[in-house]
Amino acid sequence: MKDFGSDKKNVIQANLDAQKIAFAPIMFQAAKSLRNLGILEYLFRNNKATVKTIASALNLSIYGVKVLLEAGLSLELVYLKNNEFLLTKTGYFILRDKMTNINMDFTQDVNYMAMNHLEKSIVNGKPEGLKELGDWDTVYVGLSELPGKSKKSWFDFDHYYSDYTFPEVMPILFKDHPKSFLDVGGNTGKFSMQCAAYDPNVKITILDLPGQVNVARKNIAKAGFEDRISAIEINLLDKTIPFPKGFDIIWMSQFIDCFSLEEISGLFKRAYESMNVDASFYILETFWDLQKFQASTYSLHATSLYFTTVANGNSQMYHSQDILSVIENTGFVVDELHEMIGMSHTLIKCKKK
Amino acid sequence: MKDFGSDKKNVIQANLDAQKIAFAPIMFQAAKSLRNLGILEYLFRNNKATVKTIASALNLSIYGVKVLLEAGLSLELVYLKNNEFLLTKTGYFILRDKMTNINMDFTQDVNYMAMNHLEKSIVNGKPEGLKELGDWDTVYVGLSELPGKSKKSWFDFDHYYSDYTFPEVMPILFKDHPKSFLDVGGNTGKFSMQCAAYDPNVKITILDLPGQVNVARKNIAKAGFEDRISAIEINLLDKTIPFPKGFDIIWMSQFIDCFSLEEISGLFKRAYESMNVDASFYILETFWDLQKFQASTYSLHATSLYFTTVANGNSQMYHSQDILSVIENTGFVVDELHEMIGMSHTLIKCKKK
Repeated sequence: MKDFGSDKKNVIQANLDAQKIAFAPIMFQAAKSLRNLGILEYLFRNNKATVKTIASALNLSIYGVKVLLEAGLSLELVYLKNNEFLLTKTGYFILRDKMTNINMDFTQDVNYMAMNHLEKSIVNGKPEGLKELGDWDTVYVGLSELPGKSKKSWFDFDHYYSDYTFPEVMPILFKDHPKSFLDVGGNTGKFSMQCAAYDPNVKITILDLPGQVNVARKNIAKAGFEDRISAIEINLLDKTIPFPKGFDIIWMSQFIDCFSLEEISGLFKRAYESMNVDASFYILETFWDLQKFQASTYSLHATSLYFTTVANGNSQMYHSQDILSVIENTGFVVDELHEMIGMSHTLIKCKKK
Repeated sequence: MKDFGSDKKNVIQANLDAQKIAFAPIMFQAAKSLRNLGILEYLFRNNKATVKTIASALNLSIYGVKVLLEAGLSLELVYLKNNEFLLTKTGYFILRDKMTNINMDFTQDVNYMAMNHLEKSIVNGKPEGLKELGDWDTVYVGLSELPGKSKKSWFDFDHYYSDYTFPEVMPILFKDHPKSFLDVGGNTGKFSMQCAAYDPNVKITILDLPGQVNVARKNIAKAGFEDRISAIEINLLDKTIPFPKGFDIIWMSQFIDCFSLEEISGLFKRAYESMNVDASFYILETFWDLQKFQASTYSLHATSLYFTTVANGNSQMYHSQDILSVIENTGFVVDELHEMIGMSHTLIKCKKK
């Protein structure tokens, strides 16, 4: 692994950062309240305002607006000039940036209560926080039954980080005119349908759990792709069930982060065994060490702990080296590696050795 | 109010800061687990180590140690060099700094669950998070019955920020050889006993709620100060009950942050009415605008939200101007203002106009 980070901060800065961590959940809730109660929106629309003006306009107490905006000063969401508050760029991100809002809602609605069980999840090797959402062994079994806002926040988060990559990968995947795809972990069929729309002749088979396959089939029928996209229910964790053979491309998009390294090894082996020598195996994934922006690495490190505490207790957003080792050990060679698909994805093309 | 903050960050930094906020509760739990599971301690004692070595030494899974340490990289608690992790200064603060640990435990044990009700507390003007700890109107009524770790964490937090200031204020308070103190909100008697120990002739009267007075009386008896320290039960919020008269000094230490500005006005009025022209009124308080370090301001802004959501729903850590206005409106003049008592306190001496 490449070196990462340093200890170059001075003590004053280190102390400030430590206090930011120590009060983090409190200040998170402050930022969320500033957003949800319309205070940031008011500043955005009116450029600047006093506590009193905002309280009156939003029908909130002066006290309430005051403590939130003062927290907003330390959060650097707002600043104070001539007794009036103004929005900062960070405040604008919290107010309007789609990704930031999706991350924040995912943290609150899926993770806030659950994350209180992180330590226990680490010790027990189980997603001990999941019980805050429902009585399942993994979140994947319960996706369609997630309570309240958590369902929307989960799917918004999941889709946001994959949808925007598909247009960019299509020309790469279709360069050699593949006739067939095996979409392993195809979920609700989004990728398969984009493939079918991109190339009028390609045929795709989705492999996934029964719950996901049912949703996928409905979506496929609705889009009129039944003749070219089929879906097979399979327990992907059962190493004794081979993958169907003969596909030009095997595809795993934002999929392996749902599995432990040992499970990934089993999936890659079955992919390998199902492939002809000419077939290609593509992996689209976000690796925390291959990010252009520190913000992306930060988000991935936090997301790993969602897997620990909520999803399954044993997977994560990986370091590229973790996965390249499994690729090599399976008998594949990396044929191409495209960094920076979309904002934070890497596309790896493997061939049989 | 003086201007505070600015909008000078670039967009990259603003985005990073926004993601840090968006994932804050998750990363807080990561930091706490790194501390509680002994991982930071192991790095402190051994200088550096691989994931595997730490996992083996602490009897934790490689996976668990790995996801936590990777989160630790983004939290800048650790850094990675030649495949080994090392502790940073920030990591040391989270591991060993007393204040940081007191803040962190206060956030977790008193505030984590409660703070989920911040927004509702603002809207309703009530500490809606308090029900996570017990069925009381304010936290002060329930202090002696706080459940589990929350009691220790509450008192550790409360005492940490006042105890260390007392030695520094004694020479100032006793400069003119006062014969008597009225210790308003004297709590468990810590300040009064230090006064009694500092000057063998001074007499002190504590005013506080019955619960606190009972504890104070026990402490006073144990210390053998019954002849010079007495305690009176009083509902300090009842404006119709005057303060006892004739004291040389009226003292309010870290007390007014438990009250709304309107309530403080009532307290100051009763102090005023009880004072002779020669008497002095001292206020020892932490004001968020008079801090030397940004870390202190940050902590105070976060602590305000504890008052909003847990303590009483209407008080906060104030801006100095908030309180100076009440002082003036009551008819006092500021005779002396000592900034930076201890690390973050201000001592204000008032006289009747």
